[in-house]
Amino acid sequence: MPDDIRNVHTALSMITEPWQPHRLTSINDYDVKVVKLQGEFTWHTHPETDELFLVLSGVLTIQMRDRDVVLHPNDVYVVPRGVEHCPMASEEVHAILIEPQGTVNTGDAGGDLTSPLRELDGS
Amino acid sequence: MPDDIRNVHTALSMITEPWQPHRLTSINDYDVKVVKLQGEFTWHTHPETDELFLVLSGVLTIQMRDRDVVLHPNDVYVVPRGVEHCPMASEEVHAILIEPQGTVNTGDAGGDLTSPLRELDGS
Repeated sequence: MPDDIRNVHTALSMITEPWQPHRLTSINDYDVKVVKLQGEFTWHTHPETDELFLVLSGVLTIQMRDRDVVLHPNDVYVVPRGVEHCPMASEEVHAILIEPQGTVNTGDAGGDLTSPLRELDGS
Repeated sequence: MPDDIRNVHTALSMITEPWQPHRLTSINDYDVKVVKLQGEFTWHTHPETDELFLVLSGVLTIQMRDRDVVLHPNDVYVVPRGVEHCPMASEEVHAILIEPQGTVNTGDAGGDLTSPLRELDGS
């Protein structure tokens, strides 16, 4: 397979730890990332951008201050910019994230769960 | 299900014709679309933007002038801006497209296959 074709499941199989987004590909100045999610993340906000979640497997709850959004496989939800949220998955979830390049996973919250965007080749 | 959660397969089930992208959701000024593809499209270029294809089912060939890219389910390919291409699917393909709002499906080629972006509510 030419290396500019990326398979979502092959990419996910290379990820060993939750909460570490890996770049699948880019379109213009947006990154399309794959990620495994398990446990509870940290409450945070992306003041400058929306954030798209597409769940591939598992059940993901995106907690927000006024409600929870529960996503099943093939569900898509866009957290609007500026809306505080905290993803939570009691069992492992596989998901695609889309957001502008440079978006930090923990947004304005920082902390130990902040992860650099990783490449699938391990860099 | 709250109407700001979109299910990819529910959305696809509402599409009756090939080559008619329907908006699933938006992130900032990008649209995430679902589309059915069958037959051969038209050769065209998007001079201003990359275009992302994520194949959900079926086999999609993206013909380009120097090679063909063949995508199976869960494969992602980004056609770089300015690269002439012509999608082709001998059997029906379901796919997600991502591109900036206002991107026309036939790019610079126009013609009968030009489709307005459709909404899932039929508008």
